[in-house]
Amino acid sequence: MAAVVPSLELVDRVCAGEINAIARLLTRAEAGSAECRPALDEIYRRAGRAHVVGITGVPGSGKSTLVARLAREIRASGRKVAIVAIDPSSPFTGGSILGDRIRMNDLAGDPGIFVRSMATRGALGGLARGTLEAVDILDAAGFDMVIVETVGVGQDEVDIVRASHTTVVMSAPGLGDDIQAIKAGVLEIADIHVVSKCDRPDANKTLIDLKAMLIMGLALARVPGWKVPVLATSSARGEGVAELFDAIVRHRAALEAEGGIDMRRRMIAERRLLKAAEGIIADRFEQHRGGRIADLLGNVMGRQTSPYAAAVELLNEIGMED
Amino acid sequence: MAAVVPSLELVDRVCAGEINAIARLLTRAEAGSAECRPALDEIYRRAGRAHVVGITGVPGSGKSTLVARLAREIRASGRKVAIVAIDPSSPFTGGSILGDRIRMNDLAGDPGIFVRSMATRGALGGLARGTLEAVDILDAAGFDMVIVETVGVGQDEVDIVRASHTTVVMSAPGLGDDIQAIKAGVLEIADIHVVSKCDRPDANKTLIDLKAMLIMGLALARVPGWKVPVLATSSARGEGVAELFDAIVRHRAALEAEGGIDMRRRMIAERRLLKAAEGIIADRFEQHRGGRIADLLGNVMGRQTSPYAAAVELLNEIGMED
Repeated sequence: MAAVVPSLELVDRVCAGEINAIARLLTRAEAGSAECRPALDEIYRRAGRAHVVGITGVPGSGKSTLVARLAREIRASGRKVAIVAIDPSSPFTGGSILGDRIRMNDLAGDPGIFVRSMATRGALGGLARGTLEAVDILDAAGFDMVIVETVGVGQDEVDIVRASHTTVVMSAPGLGDDIQAIKAGVLEIADIHVVSKCDRPDANKTLIDLKAMLIMGLALARVPGWKVPVLATSSARGEGVAELFDAIVRHRAALEAEGGIDMRRRMIAERRLLKAAEGIIADRFEQHRGGRIADLLGNVMGRQTSPYAAAVELLNEIGMED
Repeated sequence: MAAVVPSLELVDRVCAGEINAIARLLTRAEAGSAECRPALDEIYRRAGRAHVVGITGVPGSGKSTLVARLAREIRASGRKVAIVAIDPSSPFTGGSILGDRIRMNDLAGDPGIFVRSMATRGALGGLARGTLEAVDILDAAGFDMVIVETVGVGQDEVDIVRASHTTVVMSAPGLGDDIQAIKAGVLEIADIHVVSKCDRPDANKTLIDLKAMLIMGLALARVPGWKVPVLATSSARGEGVAELFDAIVRHRAALEAEGGIDMRRRMIAERRLLKAAEGIIADRFEQHRGGRIADLLGNVMGRQTSPYAAAVELLNEIGMED
């Protein structure tokens, strides 16, 4: 049996772009193994060059197809691209029900493209810690663009924008009321809007509605010098992908030109610091589950202590020891 | 100008079912005011009698209509019912874009029904702390059933199931691929499945698919003695609401009979304890934003320190002081 390579020894190989090392470290990061923590810290310090693009939207909007086409467009420009596809999975089993791995098969064989499906691990939040660390790993490995693709609407999307330089929100005609985009609360997080399936006759209404909402100011002008575009795509006709790629590149340039990139980096750093702190608390909760936490839980269940008061006790007693 | 009534003085009035006091404390809880913390602690200790029902599903499945009809059914049984409707709102403005308040107007005038729309406050997670505390307030105020309704799919739903005794997941025909329910990762959290719009010819396929997935074991048998039902409803025909109400009542009875209620209460207590701890960390982060945290953030932004290493420092330095 081969000895297990310590994660820290994988770092140089990851940074040299070795696919096997990348895959192994991704797996360890996703598993949340403590052993790989120093390696991930080092990876983080070496990362920071990639353009991180979050792509999100309601189920059925055709994200996976568009992401595959976009990846080809990115490759055609000479850039290396990695895709992290978030696979919502059971919060109870931790296992992924439906892998999106297969659909990306047509991209296989090109070493300049790397695709990874990940479970969301609901227990720790929509975008689990492993996702952000997967982005670091692929960034450090030299991919020029890292695309994070999620299905679902809601909190996950907010977490994406807080970890991406450029956020693309997809809408589609015929998915019920167009208002669902607003309802989902994702309109404002878009740097770029995409309306898919624009070969359909009802797509124009979706385009017009989105543009009207932008004019009404429902989307914040979050980046100085950047006017949020609404792009039409059609997978059936193969249209709009080049325009999307162009918009993504222009958005990054606008961020750089107007100093928006520092605001974005600060936002990402804040979010990640807070998420990491939450993760540490959750880990310590698990570690102490049998002891003092059992008493606290009993008091909360019995309504003698509120969750808040118990949390203060929890943090005071076990929060900081190590 | 009238003096502001301290929150602690509202508690007795809330527990006596005084609508004005309930509304005021809800507003303060949603605002996250520190002043109302002791009041919320006391409310929590006095709560625990209500049957908390989470209702969730994809946008466009007709949740709001069904919830309104269900509320009437609950009232017809002699029970008092409160509804907490989660309104996804901008994570950036904190303001709600689209209020669902209006649609519930036809329930107005009955003191046995109370409806409250809340923003999700994305910054603190899908179901913000205020939501769980709103449930406590309405529980302590004597409502027999508290319904928490969310739009969106994903992490929010997981948070609901962890704060509800009974979770209802809605699907609808014609919302794209039926697989979206699986993709959203919410299938397994259902105690009761509802397929809406069953007047539509394509509804039968949705019903059959859901039942097949249950047989395949994709939904966990989480409650001893409870077989997850798949119910058909039609708002157009006014069908299925009585059956849904009956299933909700039977689910609670099954929880009580088989001891499942303690498992559920433990799960809720764990989740709330952890959420409260996360909230405290986030608050302290805000309090110290200008000081030590500015240095830490600078190091994270500059890639000298990983978010994890910075979080350990953060927790050690500022986590526990008070």
